[in-house]
Amino acid sequence: MTLNKTLVQMSTDIETARNKSDFSTESMYYLLRGGPKAIEQLDYFRNLTQNDPVFNKSEVPFLNRQEQLQKALQISKRLIELMQEQDMNESQCAALIEHIDFALPVTLHFKAFMPVIKNQGTPKQVDKWYNAARKCAIIGCYAQTELSHGSNVMGLKTEAVYDQNSDEFIIHTPDITAAKWWVGGLGVACTHAVVQAQLLIGAKSFGPHLFIVPIRSPIDLEPFKGITVGDIGPKAYGGFATSDNGFVLFDKVRIPRDNMLMKFSQVTRDGKYIAPVHSKMSYGSMVKIRVDLVEEAGWRLGKAVTIAVRYCTVRRQFQAPESKLDNSNLETQVISYSSVKHRLMSLLSTAYALIVSSEAMYTKFNTLTKQLEVNNATMLPEVHATSCALKSWSTRHSADGMEECRKAMGGHGFSVFSGVSELFAIFVPSNTYEGDNFVLSQQVARFLLKQLNDMSKGKQLTSTTEYLNTLTEEPTDSFKFENPYEQILDPRIQLKVFGRRTARLVASLDKQLKSGRAWSDLNVECWAVSTAHAEYFILQEMIRKVEAVRPVAEYAKLADTLKAVSDLFCLFTLNYSSSSTFLSTFTIHPSDLDMLNGQYRTILAKVANNAIPLTDSFGFTDFELNTALGKKDGRAYEHFWDVVQKNPVNSKAENVKLRKLVLDILHRGNTLKVSKL
Amino acid sequence: MTLNKTLVQMSTDIETARNKSDFSTESMYYLLRGGPKAIEQLDYFRNLTQNDPVFNKSEVPFLNRQEQLQKALQISKRLIELMQEQDMNESQCAALIEHIDFALPVTLHFKAFMPVIKNQGTPKQVDKWYNAARKCAIIGCYAQTELSHGSNVMGLKTEAVYDQNSDEFIIHTPDITAAKWWVGGLGVACTHAVVQAQLLIGAKSFGPHLFIVPIRSPIDLEPFKGITVGDIGPKAYGGFATSDNGFVLFDKVRIPRDNMLMKFSQVTRDGKYIAPVHSKMSYGSMVKIRVDLVEEAGWRLGKAVTIAVRYCTVRRQFQAPESKLDNSNLETQVISYSSVKHRLMSLLSTAYALIVSSEAMYTKFNTLTKQLEVNNATMLPEVHATSCALKSWSTRHSADGMEECRKAMGGHGFSVFSGVSELFAIFVPSNTYEGDNFVLSQQVARFLLKQLNDMSKGKQLTSTTEYLNTLTEEPTDSFKFENPYEQILDPRIQLKVFGRRTARLVASLDKQLKSGRAWSDLNVECWAVSTAHAEYFILQEMIRKVEAVRPVAEYAKLADTLKAVSDLFCLFTLNYSSSSTFLSTFTIHPSDLDMLNGQYRTILAKVANNAIPLTDSFGFTDFELNTALGKKDGRAYEHFWDVVQKNPVNSKAENVKLRKLVLDILHRGNTLKVSKL
Repeated sequence: MTLNKTLVQMSTDIETARNKSDFSTESMYYLLRGGPKAIEQLDYFRNLTQNDPVFNKSEVPFLNRQEQLQKALQISKRLIELMQEQDMNESQCAALIEHIDFALPVTLHFKAFMPVIKNQGTPKQVDKWYNAARKCAIIGCYAQTELSHGSNVMGLKTEAVYDQNSDEFIIHTPDITAAKWWVGGLGVACTHAVVQAQLLIGAKSFGPHLFIVPIRSPIDLEPFKGITVGDIGPKAYGGFATSDNGFVLFDKVRIPRDNMLMKFSQVTRDGKYIAPVHSKMSYGSMVKIRVDLVEEAGWRLGKAVTIAVRYCTVRRQFQAPESKLDNSNLETQVISYSSVKHRLMSLLSTAYALIVSSEAMYTKFNTLTKQLEVNNATMLPEVHATSCALKSWSTRHSADGMEECRKAMGGHGFSVFSGVSELFAIFVPSNTYEGDNFVLSQQVARFLLKQLNDMSKGKQLTSTTEYLNTLTEEPTDSFKFENPYEQILDPRIQLKVFGRRTARLVASLDKQLKSGRAWSDLNVECWAVSTAHAEYFILQEMIRKVEAVRPVAEYAKLADTLKAVSDLFCLFTLNYSSSSTFLSTFTIHPSDLDMLNGQYRTILAKVANNAIPLTDSFGFTDFELNTALGKKDGRAYEHFWDVVQKNPVNSKAENVKLRKLVLDILHRGNTLKVSKL
Repeated sequence: MTLNKTLVQMSTDIETARNKSDFSTESMYYLLRGGPKAIEQLDYFRNLTQNDPVFNKSEVPFLNRQEQLQKALQISKRLIELMQEQDMNESQCAALIEHIDFALPVTLHFKAFMPVIKNQGTPKQVDKWYNAARKCAIIGCYAQTELSHGSNVMGLKTEAVYDQNSDEFIIHTPDITAAKWWVGGLGVACTHAVVQAQLLIGAKSFGPHLFIVPIRSPIDLEPFKGITVGDIGPKAYGGFATSDNGFVLFDKVRIPRDNMLMKFSQVTRDGKYIAPVHSKMSYGSMVKIRVDLVEEAGWRLGKAVTIAVRYCTVRRQFQAPESKLDNSNLETQVISYSSVKHRLMSLLSTAYALIVSSEAMYTKFNTLTKQLEVNNATMLPEVHATSCALKSWSTRHSADGMEECRKAMGGHGFSVFSGVSELFAIFVPSNTYEGDNFVLSQQVARFLLKQLNDMSKGKQLTSTTEYLNTLTEEPTDSFKFENPYEQILDPRIQLKVFGRRTARLVASLDKQLKSGRAWSDLNVECWAVSTAHAEYFILQEMIRKVEAVRPVAEYAKLADTLKAVSDLFCLFTLNYSSSSTFLSTFTIHPSDLDMLNGQYRTILAKVANNAIPLTDSFGFTDFELNTALGKKDGRAYEHFWDVVQKNPVNSKAENVKLRKLVLDILHRGNTLKVSKL
C-alpha cells in the first residue's frame, strides 16, 4: 500500500512540534549527557554497535526464551571481541556493557564478578582470577541470594567449612531452601561463581564470606562434581528473558583455601580466623550501586517519555471544534488532551530531575570516596541515607511512570512494539533489588531521626537536612503566601515549603515513636518521610542546576527552560503526587490550592509547548529506543505495520501448524465413513 | 533433596493462620460466589476441566508464542467438545469460556461475534449465521478498531459501498491506517468477521454499520480473494500471548447485501437506506460490559491478593526480637511487617468491595434492562455514569494492586511462577479498552454536573447522587468530629464524609467551568470527580451488604468480619489513597488525621488477623491460581523448585546449543594451527 495523507501528516506534526522549540536541543543534549567528552564516548560506542546486525534487537520479541538466550550470547561474544579489537580499558569495557542496554549472561561478569574480585581479593588473587576474567578465559557470576534468603544476608545458609587436613573449604548446600537463586549468568554461561557462604571453622561460625567456586569446566562447560546448576526460568512481564538467572546446589564441593577472597578477613593454614580491619570503603560501593539506579531511573523514564510524547504528538483522535472551523478536517493530537499533558509532562520533568539529581549524588559520592580513603567517614551516614531515599523514590516513580506512559498511548501502547513495556519489565524489579524500597526507607528515617536528635543537642545538621531547622522557626503554621500564584515560582519559597513538610513528617515520626508505637509498626510513616526527603533533595538539585547553568556561556540560554521543568516538578509534587502530606502537615492551606494549581497549569502549558524538543534533548537514537511507535520521524503507523509483517506467526511454516489445529475445531467429528460400493 | 524444617514450618505457618479464623470460610465463600446455585455451576465446570491435562496451564510460560497459540487452539477444541458432549445451552457455553480464564482464539467468537449477530441480525440472519456459529462450523470475530481509530468510532475509515448493480457491498480499506487492528481471533483462527464499516450509498455516507465478511475458507482456512490478514504480534508484558489479535485489509471485497446486519438499519435492494428506530437497548449492553469488568477486577485482584498473602505468610525474613526470647530461632513472617500488611490488607478490602459493588451494579443493570424493554430510560444516565466511574476506578486500582502484590512478594515475586505478573499482564489493558478510563471519567463528570444543575432547579436526585444535597447543608465546613476514632466507624458518618467530599469536587468543577475554563482543560478535575463518585458508591454498597447480611441466618455471623473489611476500605481511602481530596476540599481537618489513622491501624490489625481465611474465602483452587508461590498448602519453595526443574533451558537438547555459544566466547580465536612435522 502507498503512503497516504495521514502518514504525511504525522511527519508534519512532529516536525512542527520540533520547530516550535525555544531553546537549542543540541545544547540541552550536551548538558544532560555531561558535555563533549561524554558525547564523544557515546558516539564511539554507537559507531561500534548500531550498524552491526548482531546488536539489532527489534525482532527479539518474536524469539522464544532459548532463542533469546542464544541471541544474548551472540551479542556477548561480539562485545567481548570489540573490547579486544579496540583494546578497551576496564572502565571502557564496563561502560560498553552499560551502553548496550541488554540483560546479558555476561553482564554481571563485568559488573559484579570482576569488581568483587578486585575489591575483595589479595593482590595474588587479583593477579590470578581478575586477569583470567579480564580475558574472558573464565566467565563469572556473583551468588548471594538463596531461595529462602534475600534481604537478610546474615541469614544465608550455604556453608563453607574449613577442612584443615586437606587445606580446603567444603562448600555445601544443606537443603533446597539454601539453593543459590536468581544469580545472573549462572543459568547457562558461567564457569565460576563468587559465592557468599557462612564460614565455619570447627564448630564456630564467622558469618558470610566470599569464595570463588568453579561451577562448570571452561573446556566443555560440564558442571563439576557436586554441582547441580540450571536456569530458574522466565521472569515477570517477560523481563530479563535474555539473562540466565540461575540456581546452584553444592554437594560438599571442595575448593582450595586460596579460593576464599582474603583481602580483608583471612583463614590461615592452621585454621585461624583473622578478622578484617574494618573498612568503610565497602559502604561506599553500596552507595554507588544505588546512585547508578537513580541515574538509570532517569534515563529509562526519559526513553518511555520520548516514545509516548512522540506517539501522542502524531496520533490524532476525535475532531477538535477548532479544526472544523479551519476546514482542515484534522482530528485532535492526543498530546493536546489535558489529561495526557498532565501525565506525560510531569513524567518528563521527573526524568530531567532524576538525571540532574544523580549527577549531584555522584559528586557527593566522589567526595565521600576521597574522604573514606583517608578514613574520614563523616559524610557516610548522610550520603548513605540520601542514596537510599533516592533509590527508593526513583525506582518506584520511574517504573510506575513508564506504565503511565504506556497507558497514555492508548490501545497501541499495549503492543510490545511500543517499546515501553520492555522498559518497565526490565526496570520494575529494581523496586526490590539492591535493597527493597520499603526496607531502605526505614534506614532513611533512622538517619533523619538521628539528625533531629543532634539538632536538639545543638549539633550542626548536614547540608541535605538543614530543613529540619524550620521546626524551630515555624513549628505548626501553614505557609503564609501573599500571592501563591507568583510566589511559588520563587526557589527559596519552594524549598521552604518542601523543607517544612519534610521536617514536620520527621518530627511527627519522632513523636509517634516517643508516644510508644513500636518501630516495626511505623513502616508506612518511614515511607512518607523517605519520600519527602527525596523530593526535597531532587527539587534542591534542580534549582541548583538552573542557577549553575545561568552563568555558563554555552548553556545560559537553557536556564529558563530548565527553570520551567524544575517548577513543573515542584508544582506537580505539591498539587498532585504528594499533595496529601503537604496538606496533612498543615504546610499548605487548602485555600491556597486554587492559585497553586493555576500556576501549575501555566507551567504545564509552557513545558508542553516544548515537549518534543525536551524529549529530543535526551538524544536517544531510534536504535536505542527500539520502538515502532515513537521513532524520531513520527511515522508510527508505517513502522508498526512494517514490524508486524515480520511476525513468524504469519509465516507459511508456522501458519500451517496453526491452521491444522483450527481445522480440527471446524471439522471435528465430521469424518464421513466411505461407504462400500 | 529431602524436605527440611523450613518446609515443614511453612505448612505449619499457613495452617496456624488458617485456624485463627473467627468466621466460617465456607459461608463467606458461598456469600461471595452468590450462593449454592452459583457454586454448583462452578463445581460442574471445575469437574469438567481441572483434571484434564489439556487445560493445565502451568508450563505455558515455557512455550514460545506459536506454541502458546497451539496450546490455546487445543484448549479451544476441547472446550467446544465439552459444550457439545454436555449439551450446554448458550449461557452455559459463555460461562464456560469465562470460567476457563484463558485468552483464546475463540473467546470473542462466544463473547462478541455470536451476541452481536443475535442482537443486530434479522431473524433470518440469526437463523443462518448464529446457528452456524453455535455449532462452530464457522469461527467469528468482531472487527472494529483500526490502526488509526480506536476511541473515535465515528471516524472509522473502512468503507462498505453499496453496488446496486450486483446487490452487493464492496468492503474496502482505503489505506493502511484503516487496517482493522487488535481484533481477537482474527490473526489465525476466524473464518468470518463482523466488520464495522462506513456505509456509503452513492456519494452519501451513513456512518458505521455492521457487515458479516468471510475472511478465510472454512474448508482450508485459505484467505478469500482481496483479504490480507495476519496476527499483530506479541503484546506488552507477555499478555494475551495465547490470543491471536489480528489485522485485516480489504481490497474491494464483495459481499451480498444480506450480509449487512439489518435488525435496526436497512439498505433495500434499490439502495434506499432505512434509518433505525432508535433503541436505547444498545446502551444497556455497554453498561453490561463495564460491569463485567468491575466484577473481573474484583476477582482477579482477589487472586493476586490470595497468592501474595499466602506467600508472605510462609516467607520469613529477618529475626524478630521476640523469637530470640522464645528460643524458636524463627525469622519474622513477612506478612507481619507493617508496610506489607498496609499494602496487602487494603487490596484485600478492595477486592471484596469490588465484588460486592459489581453485584449491586448487576442488580441495577437488570432493573434498567426491564425498564428499557418497556421504553423507560429514566435510569439510563445514572447507571451509565456509575458504570463508567466504576469501570475506570476498578480497572486502574485492580491492575495497580496486582503489581503491588507482586512487589510485596519481594524478589521471588518477579518470577513468572509467582503467577501474579500474568494476572497484571492480562488485566492492565482494561484501563484502555471498553472506553479509555480518562475518557470515561468525563462522561461521569458531565452526568454529575447535570445532576447538580437539576438539584438547583429543585429536581430530585438519583439514588447514587443524593450526596449532592450536602452542598446546601454544609457548603464549606470540615466535618465536626467529637471523637473521630469512634465516630468514623459509624456508617452514616462514613457516607456523610465521602458524600461531602464528592459533592464538593463536583461543585468545584462546576465553578471552574463557569469561571471560563474550557471543558477540554478539565480532564484532571473530571478524573478526581469520577474517582470520588466511584468510592462513594463502593463504600455505600459495602455498607449495604453488611446490613443485608445481618438478618440472614446462614450469613449473619459474617457481618462483623465484613464490617471490618468495609471499614478498612473506608479508612484506607480516607487516610491514604484519596486523602488529598478529603483534605483539599476541607472535608477532613488535618487535626483529625491522627485519630483517624489510629482507627485505621486498629481495623488493619483486625483484618490482618483473618488474612488467610479472608483470602481462602474467595475459594480459588490451586489450578485456578496457577502459582508456585501461593498454593493452598503454603509450601512455596518446594513448588517453586519443582516447576523450575521443568525449564526447557535446562534440558539436554537446548543446553547443547547454548553451551556451544558460551564456548565460542571462552575459546574465541584460540584455534591453534597444527604445525607441520
